Parts: sequence; C-alpha cells; structure tokens
Amino acid sequence: MPLVTINVIENVFSEEQKREMIDKVTDAMVSIEGEAMRGITWVLIEEIREGHWGIGGEGVVRPRT
Amino acid sequence: MPLVTINVIENVFSEEQKREMIDKVTDAMVSIEGEAMRGITWVLIEEIREGHWGIGGEGVVRPRT
Amino acid sequence: MPLVTINVIENVFSEEQKREMIDKVTDAMVSIEGEAMRGITWVLIEEIREGHWGIGGEGVVRPRT
Amino acid sequence: MPLVTINVIENVFSEEQKREMIDKVTDAMVSIEGEAMRGITWVLIEEIREGHWGIGGEGVVRPRT
Amino acid sequence: MPLVTINVIENVFSEEQKREMIDKVTDAMVSIEGEAMRGITWVLIEEIREGHWGIGGEGVVRPRT
Amino acid sequence: MPLVTINVIENVFSEEQKREMIDKVTDAMVSIEGEAMRGITWVLIEEIREGHWGIGGEGVVRPRT
Repeated sequence: MPLVTINVIENVFSEEQKREMIDKVTDAMVSIEGEAMRGITWVLIEEIREGHWGIGGEGVVRPRT
Repeated sequence: MPLVTINVIENVFSEEQKREMIDKVTDAMVSIEGEAMRGITWVLIEEIREGHWGIGGEGVVRPRT
Repeated sequence: MPLVTINVIENVFSEEQKREMIDKVTDAMVSIEGEAMRGITWVLIEEIREGHWGIGGEGVVRPRT
Repeated sequence: MPLVTINVIENVFSEEQKREMIDKVTDAMVSIEGEAMRGITWVLIEEIREGHWGIGGEGVVRPRT
Repeated sequence: MPLVTINVIENVFSEEQKREMIDKVTDAMVSIEGEAMRGITWVLIEEIREGHWGIGGEGVVRPRT
Repeated sequence: MPLVTINVIENVFSEEQKREMIDKVTDAMVSIEGEAMRGITWVLIEEIREGHWGIGGEGVVRPRT
C-alpha cells in the first residue's frame, strides 16, 4: 500500500541517482512496514522544470547536489 | 467538484487511449454523482517517465498493455 | 501501474457511492489497459474538508449530488 | 511550511507569467501566514500536456489566456 | 484550468485564514491569467496532521504563524 | 528541494512508525543528494481512510503490517 512520490527538479540528479532513490526509499519503507509489503510499495519520481520550484518566491534553478 | 488525476508511465498508452481514459472515467464519475456535476468534473492525466515508477524497488519500464 | 486519485469534498458522497467510484473507475481503466493490469490498478479517494475547495474564490460547501 | 502546487496546461503561459505566478502566490501566502514563514513557503508549478486535461470529458486544448 | 493545491499543517491556521488563502491565491492567479478564467480557477486546501510534516527529518509541530 | 509525499492508510501504522518513516526516508534521500540539502528535504505523510484505497477494485482495509 504505501505510495511514495518524490518530487525533484529535472536535470539535478542523474538517472543512476534517481534509480538509487527508488531503491533506498523502498528499502526504508520496507524496513518499517515489513518485507511482506514490498510488492505493494510504490515509489514514483516526478520532475519539476527548472525555475518552476519557488522557495520564498525565488525560483530554484539547479541547486548544487 | 470531483477532481480525478490519472498517473501513467509515458509512452505506454496512445493519445487515443488516454483520450478514452478521460471519457470513460468522466462517465463513471458522472454516473454516480449525477449529470448536473459533469461540468465540474475534472480529469487530468499526468505522465511519469519510464524507469521512474518503482514497484517493490524495481523500476517499471513500459509494461505491456 | 495506473494510479488514479479521486478528490471529493467530504460528506458529499456516501461510503456506498465512494465504493462504487472505486469499482467503476477501476473498470473504466481496465477496459482500456487490459484485464492483465487490474491487479496493479490503484484508485485512491482523498477527501477535502467543506469550505476548503474554492471555485473562482468561492468556497464550495456541500454541493447537491 | 505551506506547500503550494499550481497545475497548468503546458504552453498556455509564458515563462514570465509562470515566474509571476510563483511571486504573487508566494506573496499572497506570506500576507496571511506572516513574513517569518516566507523561507519555508514553497510554490511548485506542474504542467499537464495539452489534451490531458478534461473538463466534463472534453480535453482542454490551449484555452485562451 | 489552473488548479492550485495548498498544503498546510492542520490547526495552524484558522478557518478565516484559510478562507483568505483561497481568496488571495485565486486573485493572484486571476491577475495573471485574466478575469475570464476565474470560473475555472480551483484552489484546494489539504491539511497534514501535526508531526506528519518533516523538514530535514524533524517533524514540524505547529509552527508559530 | 526534494519533496517526498508518503501515502498510507490511516490506523495501519503507529505514530512511532510514521515518525520513523520520516526519519529513514529523509536519511535515504540525504545519502544520495548530500548532507547540504537536508534542510530543504521535506517529507510529508498523507493518510487515506480505510476502504478508500482500491487495488484492482477491492477496497483495502487495514492490511496487516
């Protein structure tokens, strides 16, 4: 059941890093909910375009990782 | 009022199929809520990039439809 | 894969109607994507409190169904 | 804390207009919550593809602004 | 068309303040998109329970407004 | 920047377990993005009412954890 949605700015993380996010966040969830729920643990990544993410009104453009 | 958001992986469904999703899901909602609410029944489709949708940690890549 | 989220105002629809929404919207999706994807077709209902849904700035309060 | 997500159809608004949305919506929020919360007021813009936004079942395609 | 979702922690803002958020954010959007789109400008408020909003891992509990 | 939203069915996990979800998911994200981004790593938990989460049309009611 758990559904996890990760929003990041596009072009900040590599495909490899996003792959790792799905893996590690899934593992974090499974460590709490139990291994039996792994198959119904969904993790989605949604990307926001650069400049479309405002913090205090300032559009964030490619923060350094 | 009802707002329906459909998340799918991009490139899995044709534009024609997504068109049909909007139609059929709208009709399903209207059949319950009443025809009077059709005008305020919104259905949005959001697409997730391939590999960005993890089930149990495995990134789903173009499931067969 | 498809993930459908239905937002409604709370106390507008009965539990029976919401049950029916999940059924009918799932069937609508499966009729397009194919029966094989039924098991990974998720439909969630999220409720918004009365007065917390503004259309043109007017808070919608229990629309008639 | 407040997190605001603005969904619009892509190619309807210019980058300048979306920039302005982030600014004005942030200011609207800060005018209520207090200046101290500006730094944790996030405003994100998510774009929906043309034809993927149905109102009453009709896919909205580039409404006039 | 624009759909705006505002997430806040519950019990932080009064009903009056949330009412004002809907009004001011709607007006901010309409000032950019044009008065003609007011009727299809939706603003929803979703509340997150206290302690269910983590910033850097610390659960935020009723920030001062 | 990263914004993570965790959806779970209410009354399935204890407050302690949800607290742990925020901690562990934050740490998972920070391990990839770098410690410098911890302060802008937000993790929210949203709860769906029992019976409002359908998998293949069947409303999920309190899965065993």
